[in-house]
Amino acid sequence: MLRVAVVGATGAVGQEFVIALNKHPWLELAQVAASERSAGKKYIDAIRDPASGILRWHNREQVPEYVKDMIVSRVDEINPAKFDLIFTALESEDAKVVEPKFAQSTPVISTAAAFRYESDVPILIPGINDDHARLLNVQRKNRGWKGFIAPLPNCTTTGMAITLKPIMDKFGVENVFMTSMQALSGAGRSPGVIALDIMDNVIPYIPKEEEKVQVETKKILGKMNSKSIVPSSVKVSCTCTRVPVLDGHTESVFVGTEDPAEPADVKAEMLRFSKSVSIKGLPSAPKDYIIVHDDPTRPQPRIDREVNDGMTTVVGRLRKDTVFDNGIKYVLLSHNEKMGSAKGAVLLAEMLKDENLL
Amino acid sequence: MLRVAVVGATGAVGQEFVIALNKHPWLELAQVAASERSAGKKYIDAIRDPASGILRWHNREQVPEYVKDMIVSRVDEINPAKFDLIFTALESEDAKVVEPKFAQSTPVISTAAAFRYESDVPILIPGINDDHARLLNVQRKNRGWKGFIAPLPNCTTTGMAITLKPIMDKFGVENVFMTSMQALSGAGRSPGVIALDIMDNVIPYIPKEEEKVQVETKKILGKMNSKSIVPSSVKVSCTCTRVPVLDGHTESVFVGTEDPAEPADVKAEMLRFSKSVSIKGLPSAPKDYIIVHDDPTRPQPRIDREVNDGMTTVVGRLRKDTVFDNGIKYVLLSHNEKMGSAKGAVLLAEMLKDENLL
Amino acid sequence: MLRVAVVGATGAVGQEFVIALNKHPWLELAQVAASERSAGKKYIDAIRDPASGILRWHNREQVPEYVKDMIVSRVDEINPAKFDLIFTALESEDAKVVEPKFAQSTPVISTAAAFRYESDVPILIPGINDDHARLLNVQRKNRGWKGFIAPLPNCTTTGMAITLKPIMDKFGVENVFMTSMQALSGAGRSPGVIALDIMDNVIPYIPKEEEKVQVETKKILGKMNSKSIVPSSVKVSCTCTRVPVLDGHTESVFVGTEDPAEPADVKAEMLRFSKSVSIKGLPSAPKDYIIVHDDPTRPQPRIDREVNDGMTTVVGRLRKDTVFDNGIKYVLLSHNEKMGSAKGAVLLAEMLKDENLL
Amino acid sequence: MLRVAVVGATGAVGQEFVIALNKHPWLELAQVAASERSAGKKYIDAIRDPASGILRWHNREQVPEYVKDMIVSRVDEINPAKFDLIFTALESEDAKVVEPKFAQSTPVISTAAAFRYESDVPILIPGINDDHARLLNVQRKNRGWKGFIAPLPNCTTTGMAITLKPIMDKFGVENVFMTSMQALSGAGRSPGVIALDIMDNVIPYIPKEEEKVQVETKKILGKMNSKSIVPSSVKVSCTCTRVPVLDGHTESVFVGTEDPAEPADVKAEMLRFSKSVSIKGLPSAPKDYIIVHDDPTRPQPRIDREVNDGMTTVVGRLRKDTVFDNGIKYVLLSHNEKMGSAKGAVLLAEMLKDENLL
Repeated sequence: MLRVAVVGATGAVGQEFVIALNKHPWLELAQVAASERSAGKKYIDAIRDPASGILRWHNREQVPEYVKDMIVSRVDEINPAKFDLIFTALESEDAKVVEPKFAQSTPVISTAAAFRYESDVPILIPGINDDHARLLNVQRKNRGWKGFIAPLPNCTTTGMAITLKPIMDKFGVENVFMTSMQALSGAGRSPGVIALDIMDNVIPYIPKEEEKVQVETKKILGKMNSKSIVPSSVKVSCTCTRVPVLDGHTESVFVGTEDPAEPADVKAEMLRFSKSVSIKGLPSAPKDYIIVHDDPTRPQPRIDREVNDGMTTVVGRLRKDTVFDNGIKYVLLSHNEKMGSAKGAVLLAEMLKDENLL
Repeated sequence: MLRVAVVGATGAVGQEFVIALNKHPWLELAQVAASERSAGKKYIDAIRDPASGILRWHNREQVPEYVKDMIVSRVDEINPAKFDLIFTALESEDAKVVEPKFAQSTPVISTAAAFRYESDVPILIPGINDDHARLLNVQRKNRGWKGFIAPLPNCTTTGMAITLKPIMDKFGVENVFMTSMQALSGAGRSPGVIALDIMDNVIPYIPKEEEKVQVETKKILGKMNSKSIVPSSVKVSCTCTRVPVLDGHTESVFVGTEDPAEPADVKAEMLRFSKSVSIKGLPSAPKDYIIVHDDPTRPQPRIDREVNDGMTTVVGRLRKDTVFDNGIKYVLLSHNEKMGSAKGAVLLAEMLKDENLL
Repeated sequence: MLRVAVVGATGAVGQEFVIALNKHPWLELAQVAASERSAGKKYIDAIRDPASGILRWHNREQVPEYVKDMIVSRVDEINPAKFDLIFTALESEDAKVVEPKFAQSTPVISTAAAFRYESDVPILIPGINDDHARLLNVQRKNRGWKGFIAPLPNCTTTGMAITLKPIMDKFGVENVFMTSMQALSGAGRSPGVIALDIMDNVIPYIPKEEEKVQVETKKILGKMNSKSIVPSSVKVSCTCTRVPVLDGHTESVFVGTEDPAEPADVKAEMLRFSKSVSIKGLPSAPKDYIIVHDDPTRPQPRIDREVNDGMTTVVGRLRKDTVFDNGIKYVLLSHNEKMGSAKGAVLLAEMLKDENLL
Repeated sequence: MLRVAVVGATGAVGQEFVIALNKHPWLELAQVAASERSAGKKYIDAIRDPASGILRWHNREQVPEYVKDMIVSRVDEINPAKFDLIFTALESEDAKVVEPKFAQSTPVISTAAAFRYESDVPILIPGINDDHARLLNVQRKNRGWKGFIAPLPNCTTTGMAITLKPIMDKFGVENVFMTSMQALSGAGRSPGVIALDIMDNVIPYIPKEEEKVQVETKKILGKMNSKSIVPSSVKVSCTCTRVPVLDGHTESVFVGTEDPAEPADVKAEMLRFSKSVSIKGLPSAPKDYIIVHDDPTRPQPRIDREVNDGMTTVVGRLRKDTVFDNGIKYVLLSHNEKMGSAKGAVLLAEMLKDENLL
């Protein structure tokens, strides 16, 4: 068993870590840390809103028993050397300060954007760009760390990169236009999206989101050289919106390909890729990496987000595009708090361990 | 005063006709017709659900007094010769049969798709392609009718065509990718969208909608020759989705232009176009034809749909595109039941009268 | 294994039967029947909306594999003699005609109101009034049937009767005021509640619901004599409303008791009752029959409805009442499609079999 | 014209004050004050969320032009002596400190609970207990103030007291059970209710709300003696819940009366009361003080809340109660941000001026 800590454990992503690590066969959650406000309290008390008394827990799963009575530490009380791995679910500002301290002794898997864009830091999606993990050793050397920082991508990038990868490998990808309809849980709960702002509404803007998706997709789909990643030449343009949906990001994607790509061939390629994906057999890996629906009314977030505990990317509406000379369009659904966040981070830990990087 | 009838008066669009014609200075609603089920009842009783007793009226305005006691006729009780104009809000199947009968004697303005794609039928948006109205005289001649059929576009086409027109005129438009987030009222109420299907959900498919928008946009933006319309060469690709919003279609648009187009210049051009639009001064014309927000969080359907009683197309998030060599992207909001439907049809009537086509 | 049929298998309640009978240890679903419109189709095709193509399945569970390819029969194709038990999920009108035919040879467990108010028909809630099941033998004799009709109560009655029973047994219950906030799934999906009617809204009326709850509660809490039930003398007054919640009826209850009743004592009594409830150990019985929360923000439908697969009645906000001389008030949550409907019916079948009535 | 200030002008209630005072014939808004965070900014900038850039304005009306460029003051920059009246929309803690300072020189109308329960402070609803306004002079004398503090009731109390008053006057009221389904805007927006907490949900608890309604109703319906108010002997019991509705509190009320009360007679009495209500003709008074629907599906918050700009209390479902020997039950709707809050406060100012108390 690897001994792990979760930092930022009381927030929306932190709660998903707590769930993803419940009865994990390889990882044992030994400490939870959060902000001053929560420190010293039992976990179950720390996630209760002090004003209204409402339990700030919105997951379908109940709060796992194993964590209820764990006492929440302050972040600076964490002694990284005592852990084999630290998961962080911090705001970028805090991550910038805290993660390098931890990484001196211990590997860090992070959901924050703080280090994603540095040249010796890969953005890893298990099953998509596993070879980029080699950059972690470059990073260790560069920075003189025993550990490393391995960030996940933004939750909106994940589903798109997963679906573009098999298309790119087979047909080549030149241009991508994407419009997202993102779930409320992506904004967290401190306070996240206020009900008066989003009921009967769409908010057509999520600060910094589009730039992240555009840059990260190119890096993830890029080539690993000996010591660095050469970003893919694919061009990406996004508009990111918020809709009144609890969980699950829906994305409408238009893809211009190098070679002609028939929808049936793209479907076959996605399924082939899904079947042979590298991560098969890891504890948190889903039965299906990608599902492709012929039913034109799918994917739907409320119906499809929980498939394989939110670890499957669900595709539908695969059609020939009517603008690109060669191109297709489709809609995808990715669970922003499962594969797109904490449980995806746990899957990454499993992959790194499997490759002896932990 | 012109004497008008509304056919399909009890449905969602029909109700908007009833509101748009309330105290109209030029048009007098003299008869309302609907299906067998409603015939013979007072209007106020005909819009009540027989099973649950719920008044099937969801407009912000209360039911206008003038219509409450009007007796609903059967459609075949309408004598078209007694009217100067007939508005129809029928399903396409019914429109196909009924509208040509009416058009023998009387002009018909229709919200149905039945005749939109015939070569002597223009799809008119007042202020955008007024010159296409000349095709109505060709149609009269062709078909030996005293009247004509003038259909509105699909409600999702309207906002996009309105915003593309000034861009096309100034910069040229080559390619358009659009993803819509459409409101519930666009699906009507017989039964329209069922609450269990859409709460906490997105439905990524609206039957036939994408094809309509793609074809109609090209026709509306096309050139009027002496006897026909040459569709625009613009290429259009759409994905149309349904979101849990009561009214107002939100559309995310990516536009490839012929000439370089800076967002500031596009904004200026939209506002210039809005200021000098042909329909200024007509009774149902809005104060602003197009509004462009700098605030990145706008447009939002709940906040912006009622501006100028739903007759304004609201644009925001104008940015340079990151894929097209020359291109911009933006988000628009158009009220699907006002400018995109019944009140837009009334505005069209006003324009046709102004041009002596009524 | 008992051989069972489900009649009305494609509707909202029918779907829950299909789920509740999946891999059932005692009951084997051998035939599904529904209306003309569905007959002859595979089950998976019969639950698809013909117009929109949307799968009319809204349950969290996916459609079970075992039922997908079963061919849906017409109701009159059912030969009741071939079954040990028939579950019916029909509208009252249809139930009135069909259920007596079945009951001549076969026991019928019904979710319809058709026979609830007849003097030789008990309204059974397993664990609450099991002794009323004796009336089924009276019914058999009276009507000369080999089978019987055993209806469940209205889904809004269930949770209230379950929580009143332990109070009544210990403190006596004289008066009950109840206001319900009922979920959308309670109205089914043909079409059920239309999204345009309920979004951002409350509908303060559900036809016939209040009368049902008032009458049924008295019958369920009544005394079984040798050949009939004497309704309880408790007086009940209800207001039933519909709120924008997918599943789970919330009820605000004020109870006037005969003897003084402290909240702590009522809680203890509910838990004691829950622990010793008769149905312990039956396949569909929940781990907890009643849960009582001290957390004042509970129960909440989205969080609590799935506890023990929707078979637990969840109580919270137990407080002393401020009007009654002796009285308490509380809020309860009951899953209208699980304990309140199909899975409750399956639990009833288990109880009847356990008592050798099947 | 009276010169007025609004303190707490940027919050949800403050915004409604800004709307209610727009073009007011008697009152001129001369200064707006809010917290440190807003001070020094233009009003339009102060209501924008700094993190997301979203305009925190959710009213159907656009931000009035007259206020956009007003500079927001700090609360302690207000010189009360310069105003004829100060409206306060503060949290109770702040109100406790600030309002007495203002009241030394200037009348204060407050939406806070801070002083509601003191013996020389009336809780005023214009049209219901106007005679209690005499207590303001007692208060002035007691405290040696030139001004006074006149608080409104809690927004949930307002609609109930308004509907109970005509019943009490005619039939006598002994007991009241009430369950509320309250709107999101009642919780304000700092942050108010978080979308993840309330979508597809009901929260059965609003801290302190029930106690407020129970105590305030008795005081408002009480008798004014020479120097104090004797609370009514009516007994009140409430359960207050939050539902996913933007505006408009729905309340289910059961009333035990002294004398027999037929629903038709209660309706007649409510309408008679409404017709002759004292405040007729004041600038903010609605055309109808109370509306009573026979349609059993009304009132509905989304449809009825805007009637007469939210100043009308809408009643429906008037029925004989089935528990009380003499009693009725009904559902009411009251706009929590209009009559129940800021615009109700403006109406109170008009009434006090009309009675020469300003």
